[in-house]
Amino acid sequence: MFSSLARCASRGALQVLKGAGRCAPSPAAVPRFGHQTLAAAPLPAVGGGPGIRQARAQDRERLLQVEWDDGSCSLYPFTWLRDNCQCPRCTLQSAQARSLLLTDLDVHTGVDQVQITENNKVSITWPDQHSSEFEPDWLKKRCFSPEARQARQEELFLNERDFWDSGLQIPTLDFEEVLHDDKAALDWLMALRRVGIVYLKGAPLEQGQVARLSQRIGYLRLTFYGHTWQVQDKPMANNVAYTSGKLSLHTDYPALHHPPGVQFLHCLQQAQQGGESEAVDGFHMAELLRKDHPDAFNTLSSLRVDFTDTGSDYCDFSVQSKNHIIDVDSEGRVVRINYNNATRDSTLDLPLDQVQPFYSSLKSFVELMNQPENVFTYRMEPGDLVTFDNWRLLHGRKSYLSGSINLRHLEGAYLDWDEVMSRLRLLRKAVHGDGESLSS
Amino acid sequence: MFSSLARCASRGALQVLKGAGRCAPSPAAVPRFGHQTLAAAPLPAVGGGPGIRQARAQDRERLLQVEWDDGSCSLYPFTWLRDNCQCPRCTLQSAQARSLLLTDLDVHTGVDQVQITENNKVSITWPDQHSSEFEPDWLKKRCFSPEARQARQEELFLNERDFWDSGLQIPTLDFEEVLHDDKAALDWLMALRRVGIVYLKGAPLEQGQVARLSQRIGYLRLTFYGHTWQVQDKPMANNVAYTSGKLSLHTDYPALHHPPGVQFLHCLQQAQQGGESEAVDGFHMAELLRKDHPDAFNTLSSLRVDFTDTGSDYCDFSVQSKNHIIDVDSEGRVVRINYNNATRDSTLDLPLDQVQPFYSSLKSFVELMNQPENVFTYRMEPGDLVTFDNWRLLHGRKSYLSGSINLRHLEGAYLDWDEVMSRLRLLRKAVHGDGESLSS
Repeated sequence: MFSSLARCASRGALQVLKGAGRCAPSPAAVPRFGHQTLAAAPLPAVGGGPGIRQARAQDRERLLQVEWDDGSCSLYPFTWLRDNCQCPRCTLQSAQARSLLLTDLDVHTGVDQVQITENNKVSITWPDQHSSEFEPDWLKKRCFSPEARQARQEELFLNERDFWDSGLQIPTLDFEEVLHDDKAALDWLMALRRVGIVYLKGAPLEQGQVARLSQRIGYLRLTFYGHTWQVQDKPMANNVAYTSGKLSLHTDYPALHHPPGVQFLHCLQQAQQGGESEAVDGFHMAELLRKDHPDAFNTLSSLRVDFTDTGSDYCDFSVQSKNHIIDVDSEGRVVRINYNNATRDSTLDLPLDQVQPFYSSLKSFVELMNQPENVFTYRMEPGDLVTFDNWRLLHGRKSYLSGSINLRHLEGAYLDWDEVMSRLRLLRKAVHGDGESLSS
Repeated sequence: MFSSLARCASRGALQVLKGAGRCAPSPAAVPRFGHQTLAAAPLPAVGGGPGIRQARAQDRERLLQVEWDDGSCSLYPFTWLRDNCQCPRCTLQSAQARSLLLTDLDVHTGVDQVQITENNKVSITWPDQHSSEFEPDWLKKRCFSPEARQARQEELFLNERDFWDSGLQIPTLDFEEVLHDDKAALDWLMALRRVGIVYLKGAPLEQGQVARLSQRIGYLRLTFYGHTWQVQDKPMANNVAYTSGKLSLHTDYPALHHPPGVQFLHCLQQAQQGGESEAVDGFHMAELLRKDHPDAFNTLSSLRVDFTDTGSDYCDFSVQSKNHIIDVDSEGRVVRINYNNATRDSTLDLPLDQVQPFYSSLKSFVELMNQPENVFTYRMEPGDLVTFDNWRLLHGRKSYLSGSINLRHLEGAYLDWDEVMSRLRLLRKAVHGDGESLSS
């Protein structure tokens, strides 16, 4: 139904109407039930926003049709319009939140009158004589066409990603600049979202820098490993990371049901030998797996695997989770990788006949991510701070020689994507104004 | 395949073997490829754990069959056994984490030899002469039968819930007792998990009690509203909760992709008139909806709705999420309700023809949860502290008279379920020892 209504008239036909300055009502817009259901703009649109040429109620379909200055049309359900009335009775202005209760919403409402105000807003009077006004740009942004919805979602969530392999040119910025300059901070977060990994150079050689960087966003995420944590070779290590051994490619903390979205690692001291870092684009690997080993992809994205983590650090803990190794959303898009072989539980909640397919699938995935052409290798030096998407990247470390002097030492911290995206949206607004078109 | 192998012999036949003290090899267990693939227990099991009567390798199926003292059998894939070798080379003992890399695991491994040790462990020698030993109770707990898996999952995650309605007898405990007595704390968390709401009486009449209670668990969850937050009638409220208005039934913070799992609310001062609390069992409501309005249930569990929250509190924020109003896991079980009408975004990312079904479905759900027989109403008095499952309950508040004296004041805090469940597991162990059978 929708596609046929997406554009209501050809540009040619609209030019004529434009010339007349006022729309003639189409047959479909003849008032029904005695209501005025058609309104045309008394004045041209002001400012840079979209202008409304005409608005008409389609009473039978309970849709408002808005005809824009450029000839395109948008359709809005009456119920949605009433639900989103922006007046002070229906919206708590200070919180920009809905006060109107759903119990008070007539989900089958009609409209009494549609008008276009002098400043080009759509004004609707409802059957109970409550009235609502809608700004043209507010409406345009919320158009229900597939294209408009996609653009809006990309603006809100920035889901487009650039895939990479061993040849990655790692985005690099200056640490202090990111802390003090909004444009640099925005560049950092945009690259962190799109590429998944960003290097910051020149951080002071003392602990506390990952916390400072977290404050640039908002706040860090406390876990059982503390507010920040020290990656060092420790006696009686409560985590495989706290040894000098090789760390195979993994995401951090799949033993939580909502693993940290972003990770910071600040190099305070590097090993004299070994300890190089490795990173792989997990979303890229998942798409390669889907293409080359679809059965393995289906297995890893449908079976949930138990993870476990017990010990004591910030306090004692006994953590258990069930996660898909490849998390896919309802549209089939890969949204998170959950894989750490160290904390994959010996409890495996699968029917016996799915155990071997599971191992074979995991092996295919791990072999793929370990192919040299997929692995980006780098060596952190003191003062380097790497920031990466822990929902997307798998990272690892080569074993290193652990001596009594020059002890390798990284300090780490976690954040969640919701907080990082919140800062990104605010920075985008600060740097570019409303920033509607800056998502891609 | 599995069901026919779940029990390997009748109890009658095993009694004979028991009398002999030693199993005779079955035809299927005749050594293949020159390997010893059958082992019988040299001694009866010691202690209260399960005893192993016999273990045999099914080389063709690559399964180890363990015959228990009670006549039942369990089957374990070779790959899984090798993957979970508990020796110090394959497991970092201090972290109870896997050191064995998946790249070093032969996912098609055979076995060289199976033996039962003098202390009733299963010992396996692998083709590369690496050997692994497994404790009987460790193996029994990880049996792949549907019954054993279900019991293990219930032990780990306590997913069984008791549904309730307006007649709820709210579980109530003493605040200080929960802080100082492990048994009381365990009772609290078990009821919080199973019922979803627990009342604690006798908290001191000063701020900071929700933070104290959080420390009993581990730590609280910081959000943009701060470590803890004050529910009061505030000028320029950044949230509808910070007014004296009615709050319709909602879950907190669906604008986050991972809303807080548990909420604490401590009453410091109550309004003289109004301000009663309401709670509804959201999981119960979702099941009623599934039964009575299956289309509405399908709509609310399949369409993702945008939520938004912008403002400034702990710091400035611009939060956006997409959540199902009813979250269902891959087994179809309702696992989370995400619904706050105040922060439901005006951006609605649905095709036009799904808008009306969405509103009708939501209306059905909201009407159901508002039926008086479903709503548990209570009035908090100073010193009362309510704790509830924010993934399950919808809660609300009646409007109240906001004067210049006796200002209604609740202090709140959030936690996540992973941290709460971690404390529950540790308390269970402290109170009951291993506590394997205490999940229900």
